[in-house]
Amino acid sequence: MPPRISDSTIRRLSHYLRALETMVREGAETVSSEDLAERGGTSAAQVRKDLSHFGSFGKRGLGYQAVELEASLRRILGLDARWRVALVGAGRIGSALFEYPNFQARGYDCVAVLDTDSDKVGRRWGDVIIRSADELEHVVAEEHIDLVILAVPPEAAQDLADRAVAAGARGLMNFASVQLRVPREVPVTDVNLVMELEALSFAITQAGTGA
Amino acid sequence: MPPRISDSTIRRLSHYLRALETMVREGAETVSSEDLAERGGTSAAQVRKDLSHFGSFGKRGLGYQAVELEASLRRILGLDARWRVALVGAGRIGSALFEYPNFQARGYDCVAVLDTDSDKVGRRWGDVIIRSADELEHVVAEEHIDLVILAVPPEAAQDLADRAVAAGARGLMNFASVQLRVPREVPVTDVNLVMELEALSFAITQAGTGA
Repeated sequence: MPPRISDSTIRRLSHYLRALETMVREGAETVSSEDLAERGGTSAAQVRKDLSHFGSFGKRGLGYQAVELEASLRRILGLDARWRVALVGAGRIGSALFEYPNFQARGYDCVAVLDTDSDKVGRRWGDVIIRSADELEHVVAEEHIDLVILAVPPEAAQDLADRAVAAGARGLMNFASVQLRVPREVPVTDVNLVMELEALSFAITQAGTGA
Repeated sequence: MPPRISDSTIRRLSHYLRALETMVREGAETVSSEDLAERGGTSAAQVRKDLSHFGSFGKRGLGYQAVELEASLRRILGLDARWRVALVGAGRIGSALFEYPNFQARGYDCVAVLDTDSDKVGRRWGDVIIRSADELEHVVAEEHIDLVILAVPPEAAQDLADRAVAAGARGLMNFASVQLRVPREVPVTDVNLVMELEALSFAITQAGTGA
């Protein structure tokens, strides 16, 4: 297993990739760590350090081959594959996600939507017909689902997570404000919008107490 | 200025607070670091370390006074204040946020919604009438806005951020997939759903290469 890479490193890699895509579109052939740093809101030394985890890129004084580095970053982030995604929870957050324009462009195919609400089951979203959450195991197995997005109430999340993992899901994205317990080898990313606001109000409060 | 506390610490504090609220509701008078660790998905030593940044809580062998620790965590996270929030972008993400049941309960009052789309301006969401994004500076100043949520396309985000900060916003929550440049004293939390998926597919890919 390679050394553990921090979440903030991974997020910066995503930023570098976005910057590179723009620069390649604009015709850049080589880019410097300074270019990437500027667009990623960090320092050139940090760019070099982040990339060094994954091998040797670029030449001192010559910068990076833009197209080549873009391909490497896509591979590092797992974007050279396509990922089959099931969304559980056809509420507001779920529908915002389903319509998110960048998902498909980035390799994430939402091939199934499930909900517990029998009024929603059977409705059509794009090419997908909403299925009952009771069928989760079946859908994950049959549709070869890689990633399951849980956009459900907190009290429903753990049970759905257990069932998704047992049926073969390889990773979970969790919008419920609850800490999921899953086997160590199954990564989970938590998106908790209230916690994001709490991080903001914390930062403002702490800055104020020190001023 | 107090020492910088990591984002992951802040997120764990949010988890501890949720666990405490549940335990207090269930009648607990004292809680141990083990209780908090179990509910927060971490270790008792980590709980003690996280809390130690903010003073001395609890007594060895006796645990923490549940109600008192809950109040302390609320204060640390800035939740003893109410926060006035303006939402820019009345699209799907914006409407999901606006209806998020926990926002208000946590002290966040969304008192203004703005959009660039003249078809949306003038519509009513709950108690709020959607205003033109052209009025952003005016709304931030007049409504004493603390936090501005940007749920807008990437190409619009920086300009709106600049204007929000100039008008007095104290923190930003950014849903656009772009790194915002703001003065150091204005905290920003980025919520980028594609990046969250990228962190997942990265984790799965890396685990696979080492297996």
